[in-house]
Amino acid sequence: MSDSANSLTVTPLLDRVRLPADLKGLGDAELKQLSDELRTEVISAVSQTGGHLGAGLGVVELTVALHAVFDAPRDKIIWDVGHQCYPHKILTGRRDRIRTLRMKDGLSGFTKRSESPYDAFGAGHSSTSISAAVGFAMGRELGAETGDAIAVIGDGAMSGGMAFEAMNHAGHLGKRVFVVLNDNEMSIAPPVGALSSYLTRLYAESPVQDLKDVAKNAVRTFLPEPLQEGARRAKEMLKGMAMGGTLFEELGFTYVGPIDGHDIDQLMPVLRMLKARAKGPVLIHVLTKKGKGYAPAESRADGGHATSKFDVVTGEQKKSTSNAPSYTKVFAQSLTREAHKDEKIVAVTAAMPDGTGLKMFAEQFPRRCFDVGIAEQHAVTFSAGLAASGMKPFCAIYSTFLQRGYDQIVHDVAIQRLPVRFAIDRAGLVGADGATHAGAFDVGFMASLPGMVVMAAADEAELVHMVATAAAYDDGPIAFRYPRGEGMGVEMPEAGVPLEIGKGRIISEGKRVAILSYGTRLAEVLKAREALAARGIAPTIADARFAKPLDTALIDQLVAEHEAILCIEEGAVGGFGSHVAQYLSDAGVFDHGFKFRSMVLPDSFIDHASPEDMYRDAGMDAAHIEAKVLDLMGVAVAKRA
Amino acid sequence: MSDSANSLTVTPLLDRVRLPADLKGLGDAELKQLSDELRTEVISAVSQTGGHLGAGLGVVELTVALHAVFDAPRDKIIWDVGHQCYPHKILTGRRDRIRTLRMKDGLSGFTKRSESPYDAFGAGHSSTSISAAVGFAMGRELGAETGDAIAVIGDGAMSGGMAFEAMNHAGHLGKRVFVVLNDNEMSIAPPVGALSSYLTRLYAESPVQDLKDVAKNAVRTFLPEPLQEGARRAKEMLKGMAMGGTLFEELGFTYVGPIDGHDIDQLMPVLRMLKARAKGPVLIHVLTKKGKGYAPAESRADGGHATSKFDVVTGEQKKSTSNAPSYTKVFAQSLTREAHKDEKIVAVTAAMPDGTGLKMFAEQFPRRCFDVGIAEQHAVTFSAGLAASGMKPFCAIYSTFLQRGYDQIVHDVAIQRLPVRFAIDRAGLVGADGATHAGAFDVGFMASLPGMVVMAAADEAELVHMVATAAAYDDGPIAFRYPRGEGMGVEMPEAGVPLEIGKGRIISEGKRVAILSYGTRLAEVLKAREALAARGIAPTIADARFAKPLDTALIDQLVAEHEAILCIEEGAVGGFGSHVAQYLSDAGVFDHGFKFRSMVLPDSFIDHASPEDMYRDAGMDAAHIEAKVLDLMGVAVAKRA
Repeated sequence: MSDSANSLTVTPLLDRVRLPADLKGLGDAELKQLSDELRTEVISAVSQTGGHLGAGLGVVELTVALHAVFDAPRDKIIWDVGHQCYPHKILTGRRDRIRTLRMKDGLSGFTKRSESPYDAFGAGHSSTSISAAVGFAMGRELGAETGDAIAVIGDGAMSGGMAFEAMNHAGHLGKRVFVVLNDNEMSIAPPVGALSSYLTRLYAESPVQDLKDVAKNAVRTFLPEPLQEGARRAKEMLKGMAMGGTLFEELGFTYVGPIDGHDIDQLMPVLRMLKARAKGPVLIHVLTKKGKGYAPAESRADGGHATSKFDVVTGEQKKSTSNAPSYTKVFAQSLTREAHKDEKIVAVTAAMPDGTGLKMFAEQFPRRCFDVGIAEQHAVTFSAGLAASGMKPFCAIYSTFLQRGYDQIVHDVAIQRLPVRFAIDRAGLVGADGATHAGAFDVGFMASLPGMVVMAAADEAELVHMVATAAAYDDGPIAFRYPRGEGMGVEMPEAGVPLEIGKGRIISEGKRVAILSYGTRLAEVLKAREALAARGIAPTIADARFAKPLDTALIDQLVAEHEAILCIEEGAVGGFGSHVAQYLSDAGVFDHGFKFRSMVLPDSFIDHASPEDMYRDAGMDAAHIEAKVLDLMGVAVAKRA
Repeated sequence: MSDSANSLTVTPLLDRVRLPADLKGLGDAELKQLSDELRTEVISAVSQTGGHLGAGLGVVELTVALHAVFDAPRDKIIWDVGHQCYPHKILTGRRDRIRTLRMKDGLSGFTKRSESPYDAFGAGHSSTSISAAVGFAMGRELGAETGDAIAVIGDGAMSGGMAFEAMNHAGHLGKRVFVVLNDNEMSIAPPVGALSSYLTRLYAESPVQDLKDVAKNAVRTFLPEPLQEGARRAKEMLKGMAMGGTLFEELGFTYVGPIDGHDIDQLMPVLRMLKARAKGPVLIHVLTKKGKGYAPAESRADGGHATSKFDVVTGEQKKSTSNAPSYTKVFAQSLTREAHKDEKIVAVTAAMPDGTGLKMFAEQFPRRCFDVGIAEQHAVTFSAGLAASGMKPFCAIYSTFLQRGYDQIVHDVAIQRLPVRFAIDRAGLVGADGATHAGAFDVGFMASLPGMVVMAAADEAELVHMVATAAAYDDGPIAFRYPRGEGMGVEMPEAGVPLEIGKGRIISEGKRVAILSYGTRLAEVLKAREALAARGIAPTIADARFAKPLDTALIDQLVAEHEAILCIEEGAVGGFGSHVAQYLSDAGVFDHGFKFRSMVLPDSFIDHASPEDMYRDAGMDAAHIEAKVLDLMGVAVAKRA
């Protein structure tokens, strides 16, 4: 596969480009050819690595044009979310490593400041680029050594509240800053929201075939001086303010567009003119197609958003064989089942109907499923409003994105004790998506909230019961976390049975040391049990199920019957283990020499790698658990390599 | 004072109103009189209690009109922020308690669901009301027993990103929901942002004297059937879409306004007609004046936003005599001093130039101070962009509001190790503002982040040094927290001296028990030391200064020389004490019977009260510290009353 993919890649022009400076001597016709070669290279690379394909293919020409016109790294090109950055990485000195994308020690699948000076601002989450660009622009105004700031943001990301906050501030400041609205009518899911309809109207009113019309207002803004050759071409390309863009105009931006983002002949003159003339904030509305130029991606509903390795010719993805259903799927099936029994159950997602599995729910209950767009803050408080009206909302958000709704969880849900159910997917380490997508902090930031119930599923069967528990619980907010990926392959219950709130369970009885596991590290604990059994050692294994409320009766029992407790969780310090420590210290358990350890994620952001590598490096695998138990028992062992 | 204030309050109509239902029989002329009486009552009450005055005075007529037209509590009137709710509280069965506002066991200064069924959704923070209203509205669409949902939101709050997210979603859904934009051109600080300019243009184009013009489009939308008497009056009042409101129209809302929010003759017919006819989302643009009807408030730059008790006749506020400068002032002075030495220092506030003290900084460095509006998410990432450009941003946000920028702290600052300085004011309990404004979670959610430096000032002199430390530290993000209110009156240094990162200090040497204090609870620790001295007991007192990185050398020393460590901090479990416990357990210190306790805020949201009451109830005062020490030493004491 690798050979055949490479043989497809004949890239004479691209082979001459090491850095963006190499683009400066190329004519527009060459830039077109370069774009074609770059697209081929992106397809070839992603076919071997997997990753985000559609977004990058959609911005090939835009990437070439931006780097041809602006002067990175002095000028800061800031890619929102960052998953469209593969062409950018190839053009900025990283082509030789592009086939290491998302692999351990390889290139990140997102922009990353530590990886390259051309990655002006790292990303992974959505809607941050304009804020960063405004920061760079104001730094420049105050004398910092930096040039232009250009944010490239998708139409989906534009619906995030912080993008609006940044636009509002930029319009107020009135300083030169560029926002390229990369409008592909398609984020991961079909876009929702009135803004999306608005954008559709904008270009419906000015179809691409009309783009060569001259927009008088735009010309007046940017061409106060006698027209020159380049400007004359630009004049013929520009759609201006008169046609639309009022919403952005009203926020203080000069609106330019829409222009065809796959046409170098439109992009280059417009960007050149803006670079030469723009004074204040400018929004450049660019129309692109996700997956552009690769039929198998274009034809997918999500534009080939994310893909595993695939065959370039057929577009067929290589699926790994799965042993067990994914946690996401188990969640969605369980919730759908509960919703058949209780018509008050509704579901809320922030632009992730596929990722959260809620698409399945929506197919059966279209009126009861709400995709609010990339808007986690609103998702949480909207859920709180639904709960206050008497509904039973399940708000399904990845751990890492839930951080964006944290204040709303505290202020609108927890303080009011509203029974919002938080389904926290992608809790813990997430593999190839790396540090920006890791779910390390949710147990800490949720369990510190008074009145919040915080569960973690130890396996996919437990998840079924936790969905049922959340459906049945109506006294206040409740959350349950579960990881990315496949379940453990345990036997599945026919139906979920609500758990008693704040009650854990003993998995197996043993002696001296009790391992109190919270969440899916239980699988590694059980592997460690096997290894320990070979040494004739049998710790007690318990599954806490709840970080809050703690099962203090279970803990008391473990204390009474053992000499040590070892907690383990897939989260940062401050979570489950800290709550146990607080309980034990308050109870005076340490006063007389009771041993306690808490295994948590290390105090570092863990780069992308395979899950196995990550867990080993994080010290969270069976070998480390075994070593901890032996250490607690005073068993001397040779140091691990 | 109390008598004279009461004697001013002659309120024959208001005396007959117990609940909103009592308004239904009143004619518009009576509603006007009622509004006047209600205004007098609000002034009288706040003169005795202190609190938010200007906002309530600005919505007196709007409150009367909303309750006269809509049917609360079935209809949900949702006050954004909630500080404008005093008139609402008086009209909804709480007049008899209105003079207990913000006092222990008295009425909350904000809306609060547990206080009254008329408080449909609690608040305190900004920009949440539309999300909640959309939640209620969709609950209704799905069969929940609830009527109309009406969000009342100020122009400042409208600049918060989540308001935009909610508008975007509501416009997409297309269901009936009301947003009353209470446009007073004035949040706590003068409004910033392009949206504010836009609103100003909106009514500049349609001055109030023109409000009686007929707007054809509005009439077409709302009056498809033969006009009736009320509708005819409404028709004469309405400004319509043709005049403005395009921004809201483009988000899918029908725009109505602007109308004079102090004119019952405009409010009533418009609201009546909308209630009868509206089908989808409607934005009602209402112009009001903060502090309306009370000259001393109107004449203040902030419209009498928040006030202590005052004399009704003169408007003079009763200032408590202060013994020491406030932490806020010390921060602002220190930062200004550092900024004179280092021109790269810039400051960022999210609409709180007064509250954070940055107004003082802005007066000396207007170009280097950025007020981004009510937009904490943007504030954090904008600061990250400034840092990436080479500036030294101090991002000053209250602990409770920092929750709203949490994801940005993780994703844009911490992961990228950008040297943003977080000045976290109002950390800990905050007195009369109650649970929504308490800063209980910041140490936990900041210290769990890899690479974050987290300090807490033990007194105002320490704060000076911590500002200097943050100014000097450029290796990554750094945060320092300090409480609301006055300092301890300690001697102040002439200039700040950077602290060694991760180093605490011994305050006084003692025996057996070491108290390791983090932050301003040190004052109570010192009081406890006095009380213990009377018993002949002298614990060691140390100030940790850093929750991250921990001063492990100091901790090791305390362990070596004592039999117990008592940590104390003004924050929830998961913070400083949890990090110490993690360190001690990892080091095996507990294995042999070392005693450890960690005093943290209780696991409950603490209602508004005086700080003294709060600390006592929270178990965080000198008496509780003394008792803990005695308990650790095995000294039997009589139970406290």
